[in-house]
Amino acid sequence: MGSDSDFSVMKDAVEVLDDFGVPAEVQVVSAHRTPERMIDYGRTARLRGLRVVIAGAGGAAHLPGMLAAVTTLPVIGVPVPLARLDGLDSLLSIVQMPAGIPVATVSIGNAKNAGLLALSILSVADDGIADRLAGYREELVELVDRKNADLQERL
Amino acid sequence: MGSDSDFSVMKDAVEVLDDFGVPAEVQVVSAHRTPERMIDYGRTARLRGLRVVIAGAGGAAHLPGMLAAVTTLPVIGVPVPLARLDGLDSLLSIVQMPAGIPVATVSIGNAKNAGLLALSILSVADDGIADRLAGYREELVELVDRKNADLQERL
Amino acid sequence: MGSDSDFSVMKDAVEVLDDFGVPAEVQVVSAHRTPERMIDYGRTARLRGLRVVIAGAGGAAHLPGMLAAVTTLPVIGVPVPLARLDGLDSLLSIVQMPAGIPVATVSIGNAKNAGLLALSILSVADDGIADRLAGYREELVELVDRKNADLQERL
Amino acid sequence: MGSDSDFSVMKDAVEVLDDFGVPAEVQVVSAHRTPERMIDYGRTARLRGLRVVIAGAGGAAHLPGMLAAVTTLPVIGVPVPLARLDGLDSLLSIVQMPAGIPVATVSIGNAKNAGLLALSILSVADDGIADRLAGYREELVELVDRKNADLQERL
Amino acid sequence: MGSDSDFSVMKDAVEVLDDFGVPAEVQVVSAHRTPERMIDYGRTARLRGLRVVIAGAGGAAHLPGMLAAVTTLPVIGVPVPLARLDGLDSLLSIVQMPAGIPVATVSIGNAKNAGLLALSILSVADDGIADRLAGYREELVELVDRKNADLQERL
Amino acid sequence: MGSDSDFSVMKDAVEVLDDFGVPAEVQVVSAHRTPERMIDYGRTARLRGLRVVIAGAGGAAHLPGMLAAVTTLPVIGVPVPLARLDGLDSLLSIVQMPAGIPVATVSIGNAKNAGLLALSILSVADDGIADRLAGYREELVELVDRKNADLQERL
Amino acid sequence: MGSDSDFSVMKDAVEVLDDFGVPAEVQVVSAHRTPERMIDYGRTARLRGLRVVIAGAGGAAHLPGMLAAVTTLPVIGVPVPLARLDGLDSLLSIVQMPAGIPVATVSIGNAKNAGLLALSILSVADDGIADRLAGYREELVELVDRKNADLQERL
Amino acid sequence: MGSDSDFSVMKDAVEVLDDFGVPAEVQVVSAHRTPERMIDYGRTARLRGLRVVIAGAGGAAHLPGMLAAVTTLPVIGVPVPLARLDGLDSLLSIVQMPAGIPVATVSIGNAKNAGLLALSILSVADDGIADRLAGYREELVELVDRKNADLQERL
Repeated sequence: MGSDSDFSVMKDAVEVLDDFGVPAEVQVVSAHRTPERMIDYGRTARLRGLRVVIAGAGGAAHLPGMLAAVTTLPVIGVPVPLARLDGLDSLLSIVQMPAGIPVATVSIGNAKNAGLLALSILSVADDGIADRLAGYREELVELVDRKNADLQERL
Repeated sequence: MGSDSDFSVMKDAVEVLDDFGVPAEVQVVSAHRTPERMIDYGRTARLRGLRVVIAGAGGAAHLPGMLAAVTTLPVIGVPVPLARLDGLDSLLSIVQMPAGIPVATVSIGNAKNAGLLALSILSVADDGIADRLAGYREELVELVDRKNADLQERL
Repeated sequence: MGSDSDFSVMKDAVEVLDDFGVPAEVQVVSAHRTPERMIDYGRTARLRGLRVVIAGAGGAAHLPGMLAAVTTLPVIGVPVPLARLDGLDSLLSIVQMPAGIPVATVSIGNAKNAGLLALSILSVADDGIADRLAGYREELVELVDRKNADLQERL
Repeated sequence: MGSDSDFSVMKDAVEVLDDFGVPAEVQVVSAHRTPERMIDYGRTARLRGLRVVIAGAGGAAHLPGMLAAVTTLPVIGVPVPLARLDGLDSLLSIVQMPAGIPVATVSIGNAKNAGLLALSILSVADDGIADRLAGYREELVELVDRKNADLQERL
Repeated sequence: MGSDSDFSVMKDAVEVLDDFGVPAEVQVVSAHRTPERMIDYGRTARLRGLRVVIAGAGGAAHLPGMLAAVTTLPVIGVPVPLARLDGLDSLLSIVQMPAGIPVATVSIGNAKNAGLLALSILSVADDGIADRLAGYREELVELVDRKNADLQERL
Repeated sequence: MGSDSDFSVMKDAVEVLDDFGVPAEVQVVSAHRTPERMIDYGRTARLRGLRVVIAGAGGAAHLPGMLAAVTTLPVIGVPVPLARLDGLDSLLSIVQMPAGIPVATVSIGNAKNAGLLALSILSVADDGIADRLAGYREELVELVDRKNADLQERL
Repeated sequence: MGSDSDFSVMKDAVEVLDDFGVPAEVQVVSAHRTPERMIDYGRTARLRGLRVVIAGAGGAAHLPGMLAAVTTLPVIGVPVPLARLDGLDSLLSIVQMPAGIPVATVSIGNAKNAGLLALSILSVADDGIADRLAGYREELVELVDRKNADLQERL
Repeated sequence: MGSDSDFSVMKDAVEVLDDFGVPAEVQVVSAHRTPERMIDYGRTARLRGLRVVIAGAGGAAHLPGMLAAVTTLPVIGVPVPLARLDGLDSLLSIVQMPAGIPVATVSIGNAKNAGLLALSILSVADDGIADRLAGYREELVELVDRKNADLQERL
């Protein structure tokens, strides 16, 4: 992420990866304040064994796209909403990448989905993660069941 | 894709996959007109050996999100722009997924990037694709060089 | 509705139907978390005797459109506003349906109007409900009168 | 509709009703130019035997909401896009009705869906229309099949 | 205004007229809840001696445009912001009137400016009001002076 | 107007005033290119016998607001749409004036309504114009009648 | 700035200039309330030795553009967000200037960046400021380092 | 600029600099395709004697902000409009920079103003350019005069 103030949003990605037992490194790497470090981070990512990059940024959010420019690993972008514009600027700055350099963008402020998308990407070649994702989906069904049951009681 | 009218946009994804020698199946599967088939398509996708799903749709674009709901494979969403609103409705309908079910959204009308993102996802576990992606990036550099040289001549 | 967190909005629909003595069932059925159940809910709706379906959802709000895809009953969509974007994403995801599958969309967060629209739809073939709706409209006139009188006193 | 210039959009509603053999009257009734006539049109609608009102308008589109104010019949609003703003002004002017007076809004410029929604409303108490709507949905499935087959050939 | 809840916004218009000694009547007249009364209000406005109409409304804000449809007096529209969309829907619903029926629209929630615009309109044929408006403008200059002086002290 | 390129839009205001026999002067006065002249134009407007000012401008449209700052006459603003953003920037730049200095804003590109609003303002103290406006409204009714009759024949 | 209420935003520009030891004058000069003074301020700015003008305004924000119209010095515009629309109106009113009169616009509410941009402009011909800006950038790198270190500890 | 396709927009900046006799280098440097070269371009810009950087880009437009991150020279950003969204994405991606790294943003597609802003920045320490800018402004006044005279003849 570009600033530690984004961590309140981005921690949800860390948590979901942690729940699935998938290790993640967490770094503040700013496209605007530490551009060379950012480029170095991206250029060495695959070599250092990273398999997916999750980048969150807000406003003129350049971090996800710039990381995508310097690695061929999949880069997931999380539009972090700032105090103004509800994250619409963040979303457009991240998703509207030119032909050649895609960023896999998730919903505004939804770092949890960034984590789940990373797991889904890993599941392509990892049946264990695929199984755990299938289990997670079943839990979602049970959650809906439970909420529905609660609601019926309340009515 | 939800309609064959989306093919003029979506064919760019097929082309880029073809260029990389990665086979792709192309289907019209409509969330709204053939919902059971759409669900069946998603539910069986992993079993049938698919590794990534690319879904394009416009307006109240439900196809990518609904496919993501029925498979744990990564689903890439392409917001297809309709005659009105420049694809802003398509973008928001695809990207703003609730926690639990992510869609990897690319820029409006940019199916080429959907293809490249799929390749990037496959490259996590396929060094051959990773190498070819690196080669593709080098071609982009050469393209910028060539365009720059042309421009200098024109000036 | 897709989540029990939508109930704080959707309960207004239940209340207005209750006020008119029209029975309603309330269910959490998620397009994204329980897609087969959602489809089954819609497919059997007319047979089970439902006459109108009211569906509320937020963000990439697919529930109303997906229910409309699996029933020929009228489906009323309530755009539930989330913490970001003031419900504009919910509105566009619900209202911008493709030709063939309409959703009767009401104003953002206005489940009361969804209930009243359902009553209006029922009133086409039910003179009792038509009469009660006419009475409700008269109460609105009286309410304006009373508010106007109060205001004149305050001035 | 408020102006005969809206007919190029609104004729799709007439056509689909015609296809289903449901009679429709077509009138230019302007909220702004002929307000008393508009009110009279709405106030007498149910008595004259109308069962659903479809109103299309663009820009500061007041016709659907004003008709909804003077009849308890369901009123379907079609946001007609003008030369500017892609129908976003029309959509918000129609859908954002206050509590008490709903308008069943369909997608921008989508009068066909207005016709289909009217049929769906009539189908609540008319099994014949319900059957024909079910048939129409099956034709949509066949259309997707045919388009898919065509596409497979083209590839 | 269409609802007494708009009075917290609209009272600023009353106050500024009061400050200038120009009498104003204040009425709750709803386009949607009391349409005939609204039309009657507009149709008789000039005869009853009104010279300018100020109408505030929010959401699908039809009151200003409908009043403009039934009087040839100038109608000033105040877009009242609702809880969602920051008054953008109110603004577009009021300002985007079709050719033939203008509404003089002021800024979102700015009833004070509606009052001042009414005074400006009256000043066309009333030199006393013109003089007082000129005086008001001079007070604005003094206010800027005073604020500037305060600021210089604070620095 | 700020540029002669705006005349293709603004001529509609001249035409409608001409139709009503109300004289109008037409000037290119740019807030940005000739600011002193613009201020002088506004400051002397009332003295020179002008009764209403109509100002059209596009983009960062400052002319209407700046003229309103230097005259107490009513100033009508016409948001002229530019090649981009459909006039939304023009609209917000004109309508969102701060408390103290109102601009009577009409719909995007609708100079005809600016002319009609000017006539309406003049009608406050001019019964002849009031009568002609009433006549104009009757013509609108006849126009709707004629269009309706034409439409019935076409059906 | 146009109003002392903008000072809570604009003080960040003063602070950053102060930190760099660059003197700044702070004035409330309103485009709408004191137009002649505003023009005089701009016309004499270069003569009085000013080198850059920073102007903040909100809503129909005309101050930056009007100052740019009356000086050939660089004018930096700060879109001050008002209670509604999150500064989008302020941004468009400032940035969308016509060809001929540019305003150097910074992000919504970001007066600090206006100060830094002024320093950057001065640095073109002032090596001392250029050096201090380079130093400031190094502090940003250290800040990212420190935040990153803190974050690693927290994890 | 990031792509030679931007040259049709960006050439206006070259032309205006050329008209003023100020030399400019024109390069295609892509933030996304040639990130290291872009960084190198910015890092060496001041040393190579550049005094202002003008960067145009569209969509997720990262070039201006990334150049601003690697030079302390003033960076002017031109939001290049793409086929969709009318440049709103480009504008927000460029202007909404975080505190610390400003980009001087001009209006959408307005490279001419970028050139003029560069001249204005140079004029701070170059009286010759200041004089020529003053002359340019006088030409704008004459242009308005001539257009006005033409218009009076046409009327």
